[in-house]
Amino acid sequence: MSNEKTNQSWGGRFSEPVDAFVARFTASVDFDQRLYRHDIMGSIAHATMLAKVGVLTNDERDTVIAGLQAIEKEIEAGQFVWSTELEDVHMNIEARLTEQVGIVGKKLHTGRSRNDQVATDIRLWLRDEIDLILAELSRLQEGLLGLAQEHAETIMPGFTHLQTAQPVTFGHHMLAWFEMLSRDYERLVDCRKRTNRMPLGSAALAGTTYPIDRQMTCELLGFEAISGNSLDGVSDRDFAIEFCAAASIAMMHLSRFSEELVLWTSAQFQFVDLPDRFCTGSSIMPQKKNPDVPELVRGKSGRVFGALMGLLTLMKGQPLAYNKDNQEDKEPLFDAADTLRDSLRAFADMVPAIVPKQEMMREAALRGFSTATDLADYLVGKGLPFRDCHEIVGHAVGYGVKEGKDLAQMSLAELQQFSSEISEDVFAVLTLEGSVNARNHIGGTAPAQVRAAVQRGRELLASR
Amino acid sequence: MSNEKTNQSWGGRFSEPVDAFVARFTASVDFDQRLYRHDIMGSIAHATMLAKVGVLTNDERDTVIAGLQAIEKEIEAGQFVWSTELEDVHMNIEARLTEQVGIVGKKLHTGRSRNDQVATDIRLWLRDEIDLILAELSRLQEGLLGLAQEHAETIMPGFTHLQTAQPVTFGHHMLAWFEMLSRDYERLVDCRKRTNRMPLGSAALAGTTYPIDRQMTCELLGFEAISGNSLDGVSDRDFAIEFCAAASIAMMHLSRFSEELVLWTSAQFQFVDLPDRFCTGSSIMPQKKNPDVPELVRGKSGRVFGALMGLLTLMKGQPLAYNKDNQEDKEPLFDAADTLRDSLRAFADMVPAIVPKQEMMREAALRGFSTATDLADYLVGKGLPFRDCHEIVGHAVGYGVKEGKDLAQMSLAELQQFSSEISEDVFAVLTLEGSVNARNHIGGTAPAQVRAAVQRGRELLASR
Amino acid sequence: MSNEKTNQSWGGRFSEPVDAFVARFTASVDFDQRLYRHDIMGSIAHATMLAKVGVLTNDERDTVIAGLQAIEKEIEAGQFVWSTELEDVHMNIEARLTEQVGIVGKKLHTGRSRNDQVATDIRLWLRDEIDLILAELSRLQEGLLGLAQEHAETIMPGFTHLQTAQPVTFGHHMLAWFEMLSRDYERLVDCRKRTNRMPLGSAALAGTTYPIDRQMTCELLGFEAISGNSLDGVSDRDFAIEFCAAASIAMMHLSRFSEELVLWTSAQFQFVDLPDRFCTGSSIMPQKKNPDVPELVRGKSGRVFGALMGLLTLMKGQPLAYNKDNQEDKEPLFDAADTLRDSLRAFADMVPAIVPKQEMMREAALRGFSTATDLADYLVGKGLPFRDCHEIVGHAVGYGVKEGKDLAQMSLAELQQFSSEISEDVFAVLTLEGSVNARNHIGGTAPAQVRAAVQRGRELLASR
Amino acid sequence: MSNEKTNQSWGGRFSEPVDAFVARFTASVDFDQRLYRHDIMGSIAHATMLAKVGVLTNDERDTVIAGLQAIEKEIEAGQFVWSTELEDVHMNIEARLTEQVGIVGKKLHTGRSRNDQVATDIRLWLRDEIDLILAELSRLQEGLLGLAQEHAETIMPGFTHLQTAQPVTFGHHMLAWFEMLSRDYERLVDCRKRTNRMPLGSAALAGTTYPIDRQMTCELLGFEAISGNSLDGVSDRDFAIEFCAAASIAMMHLSRFSEELVLWTSAQFQFVDLPDRFCTGSSIMPQKKNPDVPELVRGKSGRVFGALMGLLTLMKGQPLAYNKDNQEDKEPLFDAADTLRDSLRAFADMVPAIVPKQEMMREAALRGFSTATDLADYLVGKGLPFRDCHEIVGHAVGYGVKEGKDLAQMSLAELQQFSSEISEDVFAVLTLEGSVNARNHIGGTAPAQVRAAVQRGRELLASR
Repeated sequence: MSNEKTNQSWGGRFSEPVDAFVARFTASVDFDQRLYRHDIMGSIAHATMLAKVGVLTNDERDTVIAGLQAIEKEIEAGQFVWSTELEDVHMNIEARLTEQVGIVGKKLHTGRSRNDQVATDIRLWLRDEIDLILAELSRLQEGLLGLAQEHAETIMPGFTHLQTAQPVTFGHHMLAWFEMLSRDYERLVDCRKRTNRMPLGSAALAGTTYPIDRQMTCELLGFEAISGNSLDGVSDRDFAIEFCAAASIAMMHLSRFSEELVLWTSAQFQFVDLPDRFCTGSSIMPQKKNPDVPELVRGKSGRVFGALMGLLTLMKGQPLAYNKDNQEDKEPLFDAADTLRDSLRAFADMVPAIVPKQEMMREAALRGFSTATDLADYLVGKGLPFRDCHEIVGHAVGYGVKEGKDLAQMSLAELQQFSSEISEDVFAVLTLEGSVNARNHIGGTAPAQVRAAVQRGRELLASR
Repeated sequence: MSNEKTNQSWGGRFSEPVDAFVARFTASVDFDQRLYRHDIMGSIAHATMLAKVGVLTNDERDTVIAGLQAIEKEIEAGQFVWSTELEDVHMNIEARLTEQVGIVGKKLHTGRSRNDQVATDIRLWLRDEIDLILAELSRLQEGLLGLAQEHAETIMPGFTHLQTAQPVTFGHHMLAWFEMLSRDYERLVDCRKRTNRMPLGSAALAGTTYPIDRQMTCELLGFEAISGNSLDGVSDRDFAIEFCAAASIAMMHLSRFSEELVLWTSAQFQFVDLPDRFCTGSSIMPQKKNPDVPELVRGKSGRVFGALMGLLTLMKGQPLAYNKDNQEDKEPLFDAADTLRDSLRAFADMVPAIVPKQEMMREAALRGFSTATDLADYLVGKGLPFRDCHEIVGHAVGYGVKEGKDLAQMSLAELQQFSSEISEDVFAVLTLEGSVNARNHIGGTAPAQVRAAVQRGRELLASR
Repeated sequence: MSNEKTNQSWGGRFSEPVDAFVARFTASVDFDQRLYRHDIMGSIAHATMLAKVGVLTNDERDTVIAGLQAIEKEIEAGQFVWSTELEDVHMNIEARLTEQVGIVGKKLHTGRSRNDQVATDIRLWLRDEIDLILAELSRLQEGLLGLAQEHAETIMPGFTHLQTAQPVTFGHHMLAWFEMLSRDYERLVDCRKRTNRMPLGSAALAGTTYPIDRQMTCELLGFEAISGNSLDGVSDRDFAIEFCAAASIAMMHLSRFSEELVLWTSAQFQFVDLPDRFCTGSSIMPQKKNPDVPELVRGKSGRVFGALMGLLTLMKGQPLAYNKDNQEDKEPLFDAADTLRDSLRAFADMVPAIVPKQEMMREAALRGFSTATDLADYLVGKGLPFRDCHEIVGHAVGYGVKEGKDLAQMSLAELQQFSSEISEDVFAVLTLEGSVNARNHIGGTAPAQVRAAVQRGRELLASR
Repeated sequence: MSNEKTNQSWGGRFSEPVDAFVARFTASVDFDQRLYRHDIMGSIAHATMLAKVGVLTNDERDTVIAGLQAIEKEIEAGQFVWSTELEDVHMNIEARLTEQVGIVGKKLHTGRSRNDQVATDIRLWLRDEIDLILAELSRLQEGLLGLAQEHAETIMPGFTHLQTAQPVTFGHHMLAWFEMLSRDYERLVDCRKRTNRMPLGSAALAGTTYPIDRQMTCELLGFEAISGNSLDGVSDRDFAIEFCAAASIAMMHLSRFSEELVLWTSAQFQFVDLPDRFCTGSSIMPQKKNPDVPELVRGKSGRVFGALMGLLTLMKGQPLAYNKDNQEDKEPLFDAADTLRDSLRAFADMVPAIVPKQEMMREAALRGFSTATDLADYLVGKGLPFRDCHEIVGHAVGYGVKEGKDLAQMSLAELQQFSSEISEDVFAVLTLEGSVNARNHIGGTAPAQVRAAVQRGRELLASR
């Protein structure tokens, strides 16, 4: 039996080659090749450090780095031949390096292991992804602020339990979405700081006997800190789970926006129009204009929740340190990041193009007794306890349901049936404008508050 | 506005083309092209039926079928050009058909919609996948029966709480795995029957005005029944969720086997050897022989759980009938089926090659007071209540822990310290063979029972 | 060291008592006491069998059974004192039995272990729960058939993508829900058959040395089969997971109904009224009538999905046989069963009281170009290929959107702008009745089909 | 219709009382009464603010506050009668207040709604829970540092793939756990900051018409910030999901520790002893001493993952603002917090009592070719490329497996078969102490590094 038949990176002790199906089943290169740029980045930093501490000569370092840069170009030009036999992105690149620069290529692996190498690569990759996602988040928030500013006074019905509750402004509603995204931004920034720690130097599990300088590699790669324990360094995937948790919450938010957009574009609501370019049609029903983007985003929330659940399950119960189970960390993470980024991008493109149908929303707000709370508050102003006012208005609404009249449509006499405290000034209270303007405190729906909140939002975005 | 710029299958009412990123974001052809064979199979049956009811002439039918068959060959030869602009597998094939056979290609879509078409395709696809998975399940069970037969008398320690509990036979242990897989088989058969129902004819959501003959299509496609309600027909994805649930339980079982194989191949256990071809090594630690296949399968359980969770989330709260969210049903389903099939295949290949290390297992069974229950049962035979015997043996074990002696290593005098009922015949009870042979009832670990269970297992497999 | 300080059922080998917090943390009696009735049922069968095989005398058996029956009455009268120190329902009952009937109480545990005992108890319990759930399912389905029968001709808009698609009948819509529940029923029946297998006799993990007669116990307890392997018998929790999966799908269905009821009771839809007794109000908005029951059921789907995920995670990676992890199987199972049963009960009560608002639904169906497909089909009847007709109608709809006219509101001249094939007979096709009646095949929305489906549904219920 | 029959807080517009089962089904007081302390705390702050802005007189404020304080005492004394009819903790307390102090009790609800009230209560409650959990985390970390300090030089085998990999120190292993918990601490601190924001003042959904001073209430309640949008304020449950995500990761960590403790206490490993007080026995196997606490904690991870999944599902797709679905937020959150706190407490109690069995660990480290990497590194030091050294050592290990000899047990001549570069000095490299001491860089396993890391850990704990 010759060496060629067993694996070239670890075949020494093995007496038979890996089964062909097993080789395919256990290989990761199909999906981890995506990490090539970060793998090369890490290797260049490692080589630079190895030269500084004397494990490589400066010439060797330069040869290795030039070789790696050439490979990066090959990959980007689509000329690199990926081999499943070489298992993963790391061995593919290293084998090509050795092919090109000879024996010195083999020295690159001194003082590290694939265990700390892959952990480093994923972190570098995720750090970049988070930055791209943060940019899309800001772009989407920008769009919301624009709508909020423009529609600070546009009135729509506010809902609880999907029942008409109280009038609110469309701008105020947009700012609710803005708030959710602000928390997503915060969470991703917090996650980024825990992602941006360097496991390199943990080697296989216990550190290495070579005189490595982890601080130097850390600086070269822009990490914020060095992982403090090698066993943990190679097996920690908290950052991937935390990212998927933050992504799940963000997708949940997008799913909530989507639900509203789907409702609002229905024939029953007609609160907004989405431009044709964000919709698709039906192959059978010629009249259909379907809000595909929101529907799809709503549907995509599930796959990110699934990725989160998959990763938690993956790690649960693994003893230290690295186990092969961990190879399963990449696909869900990649998928979650792609899904979130694409969904945000689609929304950031679409949101500024949303066209509120002001007349429809106003008309809807006029129905459904949306100013009932204002009437109750009016009665409180006359000195009655809130709970009693609530009951009085409840009876007036019951009457209105029976008679088919909203509160503002009743005569003074009709209203006075329910309380003698009601007088002519009640009608001002029952207008939509009166209602929204009266909620004039921080966080309230009054146009003045919406404008102030837009201002705060702009400052927040500017500060990022 | 020209037609070319808007979508060719539904662009009539649209005033601007779909945004380029949105087109990519909402297209499914990248992953649903995998359904091409079942899509064509469904279209051929549909065309056959349309001819029978007079919507197509026989010539038109033949032209359409020949065209579809030619497309299938093109796809399989890798010559078909998939287009994202055409959104999905259905429109890609239909467009190509029309390109080839002219106007009659457009008639194929009469009396159906993509909504019922895709629902039909996925069911046909999953039916085939289930059959392939059932075959792998049987093959794996076959391997377990072989091991059980061969090792009906091989003794190993049985564990509860990973503490040595009682001696069992290795064959008995293999049969525990066999039982789990039998339930998986049953569940998949139950799921297959609910998968094998035909939504075709539901059209977009309400059925169609053409005089279709659903019974005929049903028979042509080998479905067991016709979906009874069109709104449900286009939106039902229960079969996909039920499959993922059954697959999750099966993967959970494989994860349990894996956990045991990982333990058993550790230096601490050394209960079995896995052939080199199912293991891989380490790029840094030359001595390593890692049980990669079991570890990876254990890790893969998470992704199937994630697919299940994703699909449940997807469907939760969707109003009738079809919504775009449903496009997200395919990737998790595909991934769950692939993962289960590949994992079963890897296990079916590997299990017959497991080499039990009989001496190591026997030695382990001799340690850990594994016959303590037998001593208690012996005392019950002498007329003491079980709970009292339990306590007597507990004290004997406490003494053994302190003195470093197993029960069979104590002298009669030492044993008699704990109960005067103990006499010379106790030592027969404390042997491993005595212990396992005594558990001689259906489901028990006695070699005779193991052989009987293997026989029942063989009959079960033969009956499939 | 005295025995009193260590645990009475297993304290023999222990040198110190369990930590007080640990005792509370590891005890299960707070939640597993719920199994008391099934625990006693199992013990009575076990005692009966032990007497038959000679381990107990008939007198001992009678004493034990009488003691157990007395304890059951004590528990039901609320007079039983549960003790955390005794860990679980099994030891609480056994301790009380021994207290009452003396030393013979201790003999009851001969030939079994808590491992097979608890597995038996949960299965007996779940079998009963499934039966109760099946009854609620049938009751809810009965209610749906009633509505479908009554509203076989009531027209409403059918939706896809929440956009008006085609007219359907309200009865047809109710039957879509009926179909979902029929599958839930099937799945639970399948799950029940795998639940109804008896692990008793597996003892701790390997079977027992006593000459037990498992067939007899099986018959006494009404089990359908005996578990075939003791290691599997004590550790198998598939039935609990499968139940939670079936319950998750059922809750997903209820969540879909709920979503529709919430939409339909909104001011925008107003398709149905829910009686006040299924709604609640707002403490602050006097006009609110919130569809609490559907909202809450929609929300409750999440907890059942969570139970499913928790149980899969629980079992994943456990080596054989019983591990303490398994104690965590009960709470999610109990909660899933309660949630499903209560949700079904609330729906079964509420559904027959739903009041469809026929005028509102009809009016909605008249808007939104719901008969556009019918126009396309009409043109196909004139000999044009479907895809071309689709495009023609698309343009007509585009015109209608601009002009604010539905298809039926356009003049013949207006319609003929889009195709010269259109003539006077088109207007019959564009009516709602014409549209629904034309979809007259199995599964279609035509009133005749709805009535036939109701008939099939009644036969199905009668056959249960 | 009399008021008594309909609900007292919102019954005005209702014509029939709530169905009895529905009342029970929709009530939350069974589980939300747990929030009483925080509900009262919030009400006192609200009353104080209302008095300041003139809605209450100072006398009214004092009456209300005294009444609330009396109720708190009643509840804590177990004398409060909770009523399901009053739905929830808020209405129970308010009704009792009005009963006691008369009409002024009804005024307390001015300017707020149950929607913002409950959102405030949960945040206050969770803030306290997080603080308790952080304290347990620190206590557990303290215990780990103690073990690490004491066992900085105790050698054990380090594993990857559960195969012996390289020698590490027991202290180093403890510090890997410490690192995981440090990240948990960070995540909970980040979550606390997003929990500690005040929704009070959002009222039902749109803010209130009363001149409330949110800044004042915020300061009285110790919140860090005010929620910026009322629609978001009443519907945001991100903090609960984020907490469950952080708790899931922490439980995953505890599950990993548990897996190791279960392995380490097995007869096969025997690396550590757990004191009897953290273990339980078997009712049937007298010799068993089961590591119940770790097993149970490992099992409990599933329920927290389930809570997370349930909450994500719950929120997904809810339109703004508050929906009844949200009532389902509490039970999973409560359960997740309790589970994490109890599990940490059990571990914090148990960890300092772990007794490492140094001889067993050392012996295990001597087996399994754990110094193979050191031999490869030794050969690198002689000038060979790492990959070649790896292969040489692989062959030596293959020889050792066949001959049953570890590397240190081979003669120089035997070793030289594989490379002529090997000389007498190799044996120093092959000792366990040599191996661990050589990994002497930050994060490495060398005793000196362990001690330095303990020092850093102590500083971290001191800084909290």
